[in-house]
Amino acid sequence: MTTSTITKNDTQLQNRARILVKCPDKPGIVAVLSSFLHKHNANIIESNQYSSDPENGTFFIRIEYHCDHLVQKRDDMEKDFSVIAVKHDMEFSFHYRSIRQRAAIYVSKETHCLMELLWEWQNGDLEMDIAVVISNAEAARPIVEALGIPFYYIPANKDIREQVEQQQICLMDEYKVDVLILARYMQILTPNFVSHFENRIINIHHSFLPAFIGADPYTRAFNRGVKLIGATSHYVTNDLDEGPIIEQDVERVDHRSDVPDLKKIGRKIERRVLANAVKWHLENRIIVEGNKTIVFH
Amino acid sequence: MTTSTITKNDTQLQNRARILVKCPDKPGIVAVLSSFLHKHNANIIESNQYSSDPENGTFFIRIEYHCDHLVQKRDDMEKDFSVIAVKHDMEFSFHYRSIRQRAAIYVSKETHCLMELLWEWQNGDLEMDIAVVISNAEAARPIVEALGIPFYYIPANKDIREQVEQQQICLMDEYKVDVLILARYMQILTPNFVSHFENRIINIHHSFLPAFIGADPYTRAFNRGVKLIGATSHYVTNDLDEGPIIEQDVERVDHRSDVPDLKKIGRKIERRVLANAVKWHLENRIIVEGNKTIVFH
Amino acid sequence: MTTSTITKNDTQLQNRARILVKCPDKPGIVAVLSSFLHKHNANIIESNQYSSDPENGTFFIRIEYHCDHLVQKRDDMEKDFSVIAVKHDMEFSFHYRSIRQRAAIYVSKETHCLMELLWEWQNGDLEMDIAVVISNAEAARPIVEALGIPFYYIPANKDIREQVEQQQICLMDEYKVDVLILARYMQILTPNFVSHFENRIINIHHSFLPAFIGADPYTRAFNRGVKLIGATSHYVTNDLDEGPIIEQDVERVDHRSDVPDLKKIGRKIERRVLANAVKWHLENRIIVEGNKTIVFH
Amino acid sequence: MTTSTITKNDTQLQNRARILVKCPDKPGIVAVLSSFLHKHNANIIESNQYSSDPENGTFFIRIEYHCDHLVQKRDDMEKDFSVIAVKHDMEFSFHYRSIRQRAAIYVSKETHCLMELLWEWQNGDLEMDIAVVISNAEAARPIVEALGIPFYYIPANKDIREQVEQQQICLMDEYKVDVLILARYMQILTPNFVSHFENRIINIHHSFLPAFIGADPYTRAFNRGVKLIGATSHYVTNDLDEGPIIEQDVERVDHRSDVPDLKKIGRKIERRVLANAVKWHLENRIIVEGNKTIVFH
Repeated sequence: MTTSTITKNDTQLQNRARILVKCPDKPGIVAVLSSFLHKHNANIIESNQYSSDPENGTFFIRIEYHCDHLVQKRDDMEKDFSVIAVKHDMEFSFHYRSIRQRAAIYVSKETHCLMELLWEWQNGDLEMDIAVVISNAEAARPIVEALGIPFYYIPANKDIREQVEQQQICLMDEYKVDVLILARYMQILTPNFVSHFENRIINIHHSFLPAFIGADPYTRAFNRGVKLIGATSHYVTNDLDEGPIIEQDVERVDHRSDVPDLKKIGRKIERRVLANAVKWHLENRIIVEGNKTIVFH
Repeated sequence: MTTSTITKNDTQLQNRARILVKCPDKPGIVAVLSSFLHKHNANIIESNQYSSDPENGTFFIRIEYHCDHLVQKRDDMEKDFSVIAVKHDMEFSFHYRSIRQRAAIYVSKETHCLMELLWEWQNGDLEMDIAVVISNAEAARPIVEALGIPFYYIPANKDIREQVEQQQICLMDEYKVDVLILARYMQILTPNFVSHFENRIINIHHSFLPAFIGADPYTRAFNRGVKLIGATSHYVTNDLDEGPIIEQDVERVDHRSDVPDLKKIGRKIERRVLANAVKWHLENRIIVEGNKTIVFH
Repeated sequence: MTTSTITKNDTQLQNRARILVKCPDKPGIVAVLSSFLHKHNANIIESNQYSSDPENGTFFIRIEYHCDHLVQKRDDMEKDFSVIAVKHDMEFSFHYRSIRQRAAIYVSKETHCLMELLWEWQNGDLEMDIAVVISNAEAARPIVEALGIPFYYIPANKDIREQVEQQQICLMDEYKVDVLILARYMQILTPNFVSHFENRIINIHHSFLPAFIGADPYTRAFNRGVKLIGATSHYVTNDLDEGPIIEQDVERVDHRSDVPDLKKIGRKIERRVLANAVKWHLENRIIVEGNKTIVFH
Repeated sequence: MTTSTITKNDTQLQNRARILVKCPDKPGIVAVLSSFLHKHNANIIESNQYSSDPENGTFFIRIEYHCDHLVQKRDDMEKDFSVIAVKHDMEFSFHYRSIRQRAAIYVSKETHCLMELLWEWQNGDLEMDIAVVISNAEAARPIVEALGIPFYYIPANKDIREQVEQQQICLMDEYKVDVLILARYMQILTPNFVSHFENRIINIHHSFLPAFIGADPYTRAFNRGVKLIGATSHYVTNDLDEGPIIEQDVERVDHRSDVPDLKKIGRKIERRVLANAVKWHLENRIIVEGNKTIVFH
């Protein structure tokens, strides 16, 4: 993962990092990792692991650790670890808490998900810098610019999709964006765009997937007479609404709820589901494996 | 609705009844109904109403009332009301709490839903007599017969479906059954069978419909990587898993849950969702309108 | 209830009203009310009732109705109804949807509940005008004034409580305030102040009452090791945290949550619990009876 | 922990165990543990850890591991580990999945919690043998004896408390009981009894503690007008309803719920809360620390 600027001088965060590892499962993996950290005098703060199958499965682990003088030591540690990784056939990544991810938020006319993200972010609950907000509508401009965040109005529709996406890709480069958050951005993305940001585009879909894939889920939920409606946050792939699910939640509705009521209730679900998914992504709690996610809590 | 035997001599229940009405919405309907009840000296205990649209919509109301000497008065009241109903184009039904509905429970090998119903029933939470239990497996026989309830083992598969259903229809007649509860009965019913018991067959489907319609929903939920699994209770129609939904609920799962785990968690959801749906059916809280239900709480 | 300005010309709202009635329960009450409405050609849109005891209890009903030309007819209707009310010993109030309640929001340093109310209000989910915001801190000023809402900074502490409250009472008069919302306002109110606004001050307490009455509930929840934390919205009375409860909700926590975590999780509960309580108050869904509330959904 | 009989020959369970460790936190603890397991060729299946404070706090870990030929190796492993434990100031315990805990269930007149435990146990969800059921009522006898479980009717009241408890302690010895489950057993236990089974008596209290400590919580919940009722499972200490909380849950209620309704709803909460607490205890997921629990999920 590419990260970009150091934004916090807080000593504790300077000395905090996470390592994510994926490798074939076999006895001794945890011993290897914990001995490595101990050798560098790092203390494990939080550790979560999962094995797809204890016999010949794949092993995943996320460790958050504290290490004095981490800034000075981290290059050596990474170099040291790369030898271990080769030996045990590990994929791995290091993530330093002092290096915050840079996010781009995409939004259309409805701003409720954007508002929730801004709220959580101002509240200190989201470990990110908001590099830029992109919208195919002007609705969000005042609130975004009031916070000193660059706002780009880029009209979009299916006829100009490629030019629009080219412009967006340039902006993502210019602003050194790590993660793209689609906060009710109502445009379909092309495979080309998606491939630029694999497992780095987080979407919120306004239904409890796989129910009501595609357009207008609240109307279809109304017509089916469901007793719960939901929302789903997932990574974007080239299969519409089929990407790896990160988080879902539901609320109870009844026969009295018409479509506008469902939308109103749905907005509350969307807000909290997307905010959770983004939070976990930023905290490196999510590993994508095939079309599913491992989310370490 | 046909009901059958008087099973409780409790005076308060003797004097309690419910009326359900459906008619074109217009001003004055509630006045008509409440004046009718007042004229017969009945006191409204609970009243719920719903209009599909205050202007030219359809109006639905459920009223539970108390009336001294109801047993002696009810024929007169029904006769009196039938005149009113014609005048206002009403469909209606009276339901007397002293006349308990007679249920048949259908079950296959897995008995958890049956057990929950038996438990709630013994606990006094379900206003029904259990007339008979039908199964294509022997698993449930001991617990059912221990409670003095007739148990019929009727092997079933798609080759002998019609003969089996003929036998079941006869049993439903013989036992004067009002409502059929499919408590994880893993056989598809023919349109002929379903037509005999319109809006009187309650099924539990082991997914959050319309997600995972059809067979093996837990395996498909596992493969899709959903973060919540659910269950749905609905009336059976000729479209598989497409009948009017009565109740749904969900539980949180995560990447660690394999298919057997999902089934285990699912059983808890199935138990409570089916028990709620049956309870509301017996309390005449459900009105089927098109392919949806109105459930008055 | 005193209301003040007509803020919506929308025809449908002009013709919508609610009546709340409380009286001794006896047969015929609903007939009286529905006949009254029918006589004035009003159509019942929603109706909820509750009786503390069908025999000699107290009866409560909330009816929302539609009536063409309501603005012209409402004085006559009220006059007509007052005769009925005397006859049946009814307490009652009429509430016209075209006359929005005027709210004062009180807030201290933490603005999350205020933010949620502003969000819901901008979203059209709260039937109120925000007349004024009062705070003993400056934190909320920019966001409040950006929305064109008057903001008063009134420093407060227990030594100057009476002068402060006198000033606040004057402001409530000046701004013709109907309802006071304490959105995490961390000052105790005197009996004199409370008596000015009986059943019109809505507070949010940051615990699941009656657990952790008083100060610092999150610290005490942490020390007790509870597995759920909650929030409670209630009307303010002279007994601290003992007023009639309107709404409560909880979230799951575990041993890893320290006090700042609990506060963070708690803020989300507080936001939605207070917003719900305010919404139901504005929709006249709440009747206070003794130290409890009836909330009609 | 004393365990007693080998009840399963299933090979996989024979080779599964858990180790629980508590020690001062410092870098390298996980390395020590994982190297120990690796040395004995054990594979970590699941690992959860918690530190009260990464700097000078207390560290807790639960590791579930698989080890071929565990039955033959386990004495050596325990001996080997005891040296490590002394060096790092560790408290520890080993738990072998092939050695099921033996439970005594205590119950009074209300059998719903007992029924739930029996159901989960028959379903294979609870890793225990039910050694004996003790009751001060006869209600549960038929269902218990039908399952071949010894049932003892021991009338109890406060005048004969000591004799009764003496008899119960003898039975616990005779049946080699590891854990006592109070499944709505409505007798207060003396400090002497409690001291015999420290952190091994699990109770279900019918309120959301610390709200409504003591007798008759549903009546008090009704009188207070709460909008949620709950249940709490906790270890029994000498302070009534003050022991370490294991699990809590709630359900929504409203003004229509009278005390019998609350009890009915409460029974459902009690059933699932107690069943969860027992399950986690049997899976060695719970560590008691002071008056709180760490529950590893």
